[in-house]
Amino acid sequence: MDNNEENKIEKMRHSASHVLAQAVLKLYPDAKLGIGPAIENGFYYDFDFAEPIEEEDLKKIEKEMKDIIKRDLPIKQVLLKRKEATDYLQKTDQVYKLELLEEIPDEKLSFYITGDNEFADLCRGPHVESTGEVGHIKLTKTAGAYWRGDEKLKMLTRIYGTAFETKEELKDYLAKMDEAEKRNHRKLGKQLELFAIIPEIGQGLPVWLPRGYVMRRILEDYMLDLEREAGYQHILTPHINKEILFKTSGHLDFYKESMYAPIKVEDETYYLKPMNCPAGMMVYNLSPKSYRDLPYRLGEFGTVYRYEKSGELHGLQRVRGFTQNDAHIFCTPEQLDDVLNETLNLLDTFYKDVGFDKYTFRLSISDWETKGDKYAGDPEKWKIAEEALRKVLVERGLEFEEMPGDAAFYGPKIDVQAVNVFGKEDSISTLQLDFNEPAKFNIKYIDEKGEEKEPFLIHRALIGSFERFFAFLIEHHGGDFPLWFAPEQVYIIPISEKHNKYANEVYQKIKDAKMRVRIDDRNKSMQSKIRDAEKFKIPYILIIGDKEIETETVSIRARKSKEQGLMKVQEFIDTLKEEIRTKGVSESN
Amino acid sequence: MDNNEENKIEKMRHSASHVLAQAVLKLYPDAKLGIGPAIENGFYYDFDFAEPIEEEDLKKIEKEMKDIIKRDLPIKQVLLKRKEATDYLQKTDQVYKLELLEEIPDEKLSFYITGDNEFADLCRGPHVESTGEVGHIKLTKTAGAYWRGDEKLKMLTRIYGTAFETKEELKDYLAKMDEAEKRNHRKLGKQLELFAIIPEIGQGLPVWLPRGYVMRRILEDYMLDLEREAGYQHILTPHINKEILFKTSGHLDFYKESMYAPIKVEDETYYLKPMNCPAGMMVYNLSPKSYRDLPYRLGEFGTVYRYEKSGELHGLQRVRGFTQNDAHIFCTPEQLDDVLNETLNLLDTFYKDVGFDKYTFRLSISDWETKGDKYAGDPEKWKIAEEALRKVLVERGLEFEEMPGDAAFYGPKIDVQAVNVFGKEDSISTLQLDFNEPAKFNIKYIDEKGEEKEPFLIHRALIGSFERFFAFLIEHHGGDFPLWFAPEQVYIIPISEKHNKYANEVYQKIKDAKMRVRIDDRNKSMQSKIRDAEKFKIPYILIIGDKEIETETVSIRARKSKEQGLMKVQEFIDTLKEEIRTKGVSESN
Repeated sequence: MDNNEENKIEKMRHSASHVLAQAVLKLYPDAKLGIGPAIENGFYYDFDFAEPIEEEDLKKIEKEMKDIIKRDLPIKQVLLKRKEATDYLQKTDQVYKLELLEEIPDEKLSFYITGDNEFADLCRGPHVESTGEVGHIKLTKTAGAYWRGDEKLKMLTRIYGTAFETKEELKDYLAKMDEAEKRNHRKLGKQLELFAIIPEIGQGLPVWLPRGYVMRRILEDYMLDLEREAGYQHILTPHINKEILFKTSGHLDFYKESMYAPIKVEDETYYLKPMNCPAGMMVYNLSPKSYRDLPYRLGEFGTVYRYEKSGELHGLQRVRGFTQNDAHIFCTPEQLDDVLNETLNLLDTFYKDVGFDKYTFRLSISDWETKGDKYAGDPEKWKIAEEALRKVLVERGLEFEEMPGDAAFYGPKIDVQAVNVFGKEDSISTLQLDFNEPAKFNIKYIDEKGEEKEPFLIHRALIGSFERFFAFLIEHHGGDFPLWFAPEQVYIIPISEKHNKYANEVYQKIKDAKMRVRIDDRNKSMQSKIRDAEKFKIPYILIIGDKEIETETVSIRARKSKEQGLMKVQEFIDTLKEEIRTKGVSESN
Repeated sequence: MDNNEENKIEKMRHSASHVLAQAVLKLYPDAKLGIGPAIENGFYYDFDFAEPIEEEDLKKIEKEMKDIIKRDLPIKQVLLKRKEATDYLQKTDQVYKLELLEEIPDEKLSFYITGDNEFADLCRGPHVESTGEVGHIKLTKTAGAYWRGDEKLKMLTRIYGTAFETKEELKDYLAKMDEAEKRNHRKLGKQLELFAIIPEIGQGLPVWLPRGYVMRRILEDYMLDLEREAGYQHILTPHINKEILFKTSGHLDFYKESMYAPIKVEDETYYLKPMNCPAGMMVYNLSPKSYRDLPYRLGEFGTVYRYEKSGELHGLQRVRGFTQNDAHIFCTPEQLDDVLNETLNLLDTFYKDVGFDKYTFRLSISDWETKGDKYAGDPEKWKIAEEALRKVLVERGLEFEEMPGDAAFYGPKIDVQAVNVFGKEDSISTLQLDFNEPAKFNIKYIDEKGEEKEPFLIHRALIGSFERFFAFLIEHHGGDFPLWFAPEQVYIIPISEKHNKYANEVYQKIKDAKMRVRIDDRNKSMQSKIRDAEKFKIPYILIIGDKEIETETVSIRARKSKEQGLMKVQEFIDTLKEEIRTKGVSESN
């Protein structure tokens, strides 16, 4: 979309907000107007209604808007003198607009008038020339919004809408939003009973429910295996650490505002750890290391607590307590390339195995030339590290965005970014060099010549946060998880009571094959049992009736293809085993 | 041992402390005496030495003591007037004794004199009649001890000794202590690199090191399987919970002194959770429950933080942060017996599988008749619960100690007690009824008649604390862990470089069989590699040399039997698989 095109759409959406205000004033003459801009994909307008309106009322308003659009009324700018403008707004009792007016220093004040003075709004524009050009609109939702964004001021009602030039574009957009909403991890998390945020336990502190915990545990075990195979060792350190640790690391200087308040015990002060590194450094230092011990790869499923403002919390995506699939790798300069490659190999394998393919790379480097004094450590080492990071991305043929000046003060990094179904971006994995902590914790190794050296330190978190990654994973799969980590894999539904015995035999066989299987022998109709299983997006539903007993088979209903015919039990088990072994998604997907 | 016997031994040990003081004064005439009582298995005496003494000096002192014992000097009581007593202690400059003297109100002061005024001590007695009766002694260690136990006063040197009537008893006791010391989990934890307590991270906050974490993870997985098989579901709740939760539960009334200081966020107050129950109650209440949902078994590997005084901390046995293999079971009154039995079944299986057999049961019940007002809940339910608890113990033929008045205010319980190698007792598992929290959290279910009822609530922790249980487990096995949860199972040692190729083939085969195997192909002697493997108490060491390559076998050196001959690789793998499957300890044990 070129700039002209973009401006045109923005004008159109801005005019749509005027049409909305005009429609509201026609239906609710007492309503007071706040502000009404164009936004991404649409527009909104804030109103102060005498009586609260319901979502239902949106239909009525939308109908009125469409009428205004159909009438193709001209939209014209007029410039009023301050006295005229004030008089008009006082006469129409638009108190919020009066407040805005006072802050505009201009001599002449810009208003836009729709039709034959049917509607007038204090506004700089620009707008389309008539309401007929507003295109195709839909009001989507209401929300509370403080006047001027200030929570000490009155809460107004914000009406959101979307507008597109063509009916098709509108339809496509709404369908996309509809699909996104179906994939919304907060909605699916509830439907699939994966996690819960319970206000009495705490905002931003998710509880893993049984089905979510099953998945988490599977992914933890998977990661342990993957990392052990790659030479990692794993530790577990406490959630509170003594103050001295964060003084040494410097977190109390540069990270304090993200840390929870201190906890006192006897005459000591503890903090909930916001990062696992300081304790990891202490473990490295438990015994002297030689070059033969490097690369030394120390992993931890480390649960950290970071203070986020309540307004920024969002389901599993933005939380206050989360568990990282964390690791610290200590290596020699010569090992750096290999370690980076090995780490990206793990990342590749992991993303592939969980079926996640919507991510981009970002390389954050320093701007030493202009702002060298803000960085810690040796410029020579920074150079080596930044070149190594760039090289590994280039050599692997990965596209990446390079961001000079975006490095942390202690080192450059590669971030893996993902965009959620609603377009919100977040880092999901990180690979970060650190030139600060090794010096702070006196991290050393003895090299081949018997000399004491400082190793390179790489922090890496493949699953940057189990919580956030789950948010992306849920939305990416829309809850249709690959068989190998689906919380439940098979539901067995006997059609009636007389099929229970055989169903139980089948159940036992599948259970003995270490599948996560459930039998639903409740006294309910088959259809209602199938609906329950579908609610949980169970990969395979097995229906057991007379025919199946006779032929010693099961009727398979795969998640999406719905019907898949009869199969011998052992054949079914073998098929599933293969699907699990290869970590493939079920054929039905 | 009857009372007479006991008194005799105590007199003997008390006299041994006098002999110790006499020997010290002979060798260090400037030493000042503190106090010197008999204790379990021995005695000690506190001294203020002009120059600090070394452990080496104990030999010299012990030799002098043995000489005094051999000389069989009479020990006689004399009663001195205050003036005489004061004069004597002033003359000998025994300042601490003078301090003690001032606090004795008696007119006549009791002294015990050894030999012909060779030694005199202000002392109530009683003592044996001569030093010849002191028996067989050994000085064991020194420690610092504040005068009168007050850390504001001077630190004295405490010399510990042990004394027995016969040489054999002394020898047996020392051998037992020696064995206990070899099993000391703090010593083994270090040697086997299982855990570390790092002062900068925090006292009582153990760090699980890689080898310890491997074991912990195996036991966690084992427990998940065992409990899932028994119908449990598992959750994971945050380590901090909002204040309201502990207000609701009542913990802030009755448990506050064991809780860490509060943490403030925005305008909310959080606490590190000392128990997992309140969050568990919230999860139960996420959806309405009917009798069909019961028993509802909700498990959690819940890490809790409880404030323990620093003086009470001890390795992994007494800590400030620990993880419980926790669960809450909600059931109907009719299900109570079954649920208790099922829980004790799990306990049996678990103890058997980890090879732990040194425990006793304790039933803590109420004393409603005399102190009914201290208990929460309905007396009728207490009666049902206490009878059910007693019944399950009796019917299973378990010996138990019944402790009336030892129930918590909120319910009766069964504790499983274990005694560590040094004789210190602790609870390792708990099965606790709770009549407080269901009411506080409005925990209900709908019964068959459609009526709302309060279920029975059972808290149970099979592994009451992974940390504490590990302390017992390490000491119980003396670090020789059963194969299935040994952190490393097999070490492969090629005798020289030319054997590396075949050794690596063997390694790969064993690794493919999912064993925890390591190959030690460092350029070191076989003997030194074996010593390293023995330090880690590796169950099986495989030696690879010419003979093994020729015959396509491995030479097995099992943990204790040392030599076990040649075996084909596949046969070895099958043997180990069977040992793991049956959870047996290795044949060599």
